[in-house]
Amino acid sequence: MNYPSRLIEEAVAEISRLPGIGKKTALRLALHLLKRDEEQTRSLSDALLNMRTKTTYCTRCHNIADDVLCNICSNNKRDQTTICVVVDTRDVLAIELTNQYRGLYHVLGGIISPLEGIGPSDLEIDSLMSRIGSQEGDEAVQEVILALSPTMEGDTTAFYLQKKLKATGIKLSTIARGIPIGGDLEYADEITLGRSIVSRVAYD
Amino acid sequence: MNYPSRLIEEAVAEISRLPGIGKKTALRLALHLLKRDEEQTRSLSDALLNMRTKTTYCTRCHNIADDVLCNICSNNKRDQTTICVVVDTRDVLAIELTNQYRGLYHVLGGIISPLEGIGPSDLEIDSLMSRIGSQEGDEAVQEVILALSPTMEGDTTAFYLQKKLKATGIKLSTIARGIPIGGDLEYADEITLGRSIVSRVAYD
Repeated sequence: MNYPSRLIEEAVAEISRLPGIGKKTALRLALHLLKRDEEQTRSLSDALLNMRTKTTYCTRCHNIADDVLCNICSNNKRDQTTICVVVDTRDVLAIELTNQYRGLYHVLGGIISPLEGIGPSDLEIDSLMSRIGSQEGDEAVQEVILALSPTMEGDTTAFYLQKKLKATGIKLSTIARGIPIGGDLEYADEITLGRSIVSRVAYD
Repeated sequence: MNYPSRLIEEAVAEISRLPGIGKKTALRLALHLLKRDEEQTRSLSDALLNMRTKTTYCTRCHNIADDVLCNICSNNKRDQTTICVVVDTRDVLAIELTNQYRGLYHVLGGIISPLEGIGPSDLEIDSLMSRIGSQEGDEAVQEVILALSPTMEGDTTAFYLQKKLKATGIKLSTIARGIPIGGDLEYADEITLGRSIVSRVAYD
């Protein structure tokens, strides 16, 4: 495309490097910013750079944090004895939105994927093990919940963690698989439906 | 939502001010940038700010430009005697992509819309008139093409320009309305279909 200005072309090139944003959308966004006050672009630009350069990771759970500990780890009203293992920050946010979990997290930072060359040593597994070993007294870890996606990579990672954690004698669990609330039995795939029968829950 | 970091929250707030980008997409983009090299965020941030602060407008046609004249106005291979009137830069790009037009443009910067309080004086109409008056000799303007959308506002603006330009005696035209190439007669709305019959084109 023959852009009217080199500066626009550069901005479009940079914006369209973001996932899910093509050249046309990038151009629309660039022209939108051009129409607005300079202040809006300045605060967007600053916010992005600030986020990227100043955001740190929690030294305990590896979640994104503003400080040494994230605001979940540093909240002493949370149940310190339960750790929910997730792949990334988005999973933490998704679980937090449910308001059903009051324990801590451990962010692996990825998932075992031989195809992409990601092995156990690339994930925060050693730090999970030492964390479990070091929390003592009232804060001793009693349960680890694996909240990984039911994909090939998720299952591989879960299997690896199960083997590792078995030795510690800590209670291990995984989030329930089954028919989504509001989901229709007729349209559920057989594996999910099969799993939902095997893992059936008794009425109280 | 309970963001893990104030910096992320600020970045998400700024990103989601862009049109068509909600909080969820903004968060996805922010986390994407966090995973990539700092360099990517830095160049995105710089490109946006550079574009916003350094882009200027062509003093002749008001298209976006890097210099006093845009690269279309400063290209002396373009037909200087024809001016195509459009609403904004995106329209210029769209027409340029067709490779069917070799004249110049005039970017109005908006469209007459009483509802939004935009009148003729808010658009680059006076500069169009003085431009037509000032181009002399070989460069004297011979035709003005109105390329405005066939909406209420577009038609109002076109009507206003017709009245203004009539006095100059210059040839006036508008882009053809009709069935889009590849469009199906059956699914065309009646107004478009009606217009395509009234404006039928004789075979050579």
